[in-house]
Amino acid sequence: MRYLEDFSEGQVFELGEETIREQEILDFARRFDAQLFHIDAEAAKRSIYGGLIASGWHTGSLFMGMLVRGLIHDVASMGAAGLDELRWLKPVRPNDTLRGRLTVLGTRPSTKHADRGALTCLGELFNQHAERVLLIRWSAIIGRRRPSAPSKPDV
Amino acid sequence: MRYLEDFSEGQVFELGEETIREQEILDFARRFDAQLFHIDAEAAKRSIYGGLIASGWHTGSLFMGMLVRGLIHDVASMGAAGLDELRWLKPVRPNDTLRGRLTVLGTRPSTKHADRGALTCLGELFNQHAERVLLIRWSAIIGRRRPSAPSKPDV
Repeated sequence: MRYLEDFSEGQVFELGEETIREQEILDFARRFDAQLFHIDAEAAKRSIYGGLIASGWHTGSLFMGMLVRGLIHDVASMGAAGLDELRWLKPVRPNDTLRGRLTVLGTRPSTKHADRGALTCLGELFNQHAERVLLIRWSAIIGRRRPSAPSKPDV
Repeated sequence: MRYLEDFSEGQVFELGEETIREQEILDFARRFDAQLFHIDAEAAKRSIYGGLIASGWHTGSLFMGMLVRGLIHDVASMGAAGLDELRWLKPVRPNDTLRGRLTVLGTRPSTKHADRGALTCLGELFNQHAERVLLIRWSAIIGRRRPSAPSKPDV
């Protein structure tokens, strides 16, 4: 199991790759993002995207799946409070093969909870043309191996 | 059909509500975010969350679904380039009933494309205790009813 102490700025983790299929694009979008360019291939051809594209929520969720399978399954993860930035840089289309990567931007013990800290991350997805399609910046909450007294105790 | 000209700063749209069930929390997380506090009710009890909680990607996707059904189905939407901020403010648990709201923060015609512009939005989800569980800030790309010459033509 990896803890906060096992990470340091500049580390890069390759998260594997996954091919996204049209049926999954349609299924996800019908449930969560039923805009025509996500659910109707003919209408999508007439949109600014020129064809069916995956919901950005689907792309983000695919990244999260790769991150869990590729790294977090083995990390003392306690979740996250949010995302500081997310960019859908290029459309994701049926049969695109996406490759995930995580770069550690920094680590910081919590000042409030001695048993955890923040792992600030850059997440990226690249397609089979080596184009970056997704960028996410956020801080994950990660358990510490050796909890110490908080640097600023609660008052 | 609503276009960019039909929106203005301060408008508020109620997006309806939806109850999230344990089975859907489990199904989504097994596919996209298989951390123990999302997929294993017993392990989740021993986590900092004290019980099963929905993946934040699931919560965000639920908001998007409400937004499309409650508003965007009738808007000349052209997608979005990303999210400027996302906060998971409170855990979302099985059988929570979530209520969605969109507030328009501003509108701005594109300087590059005469046929569209940016709708800057605040999205929120509240649970049945009136606690805010999700906040999202982003700019949607929306078609204009009366495209005009771009204010700064491409060079």
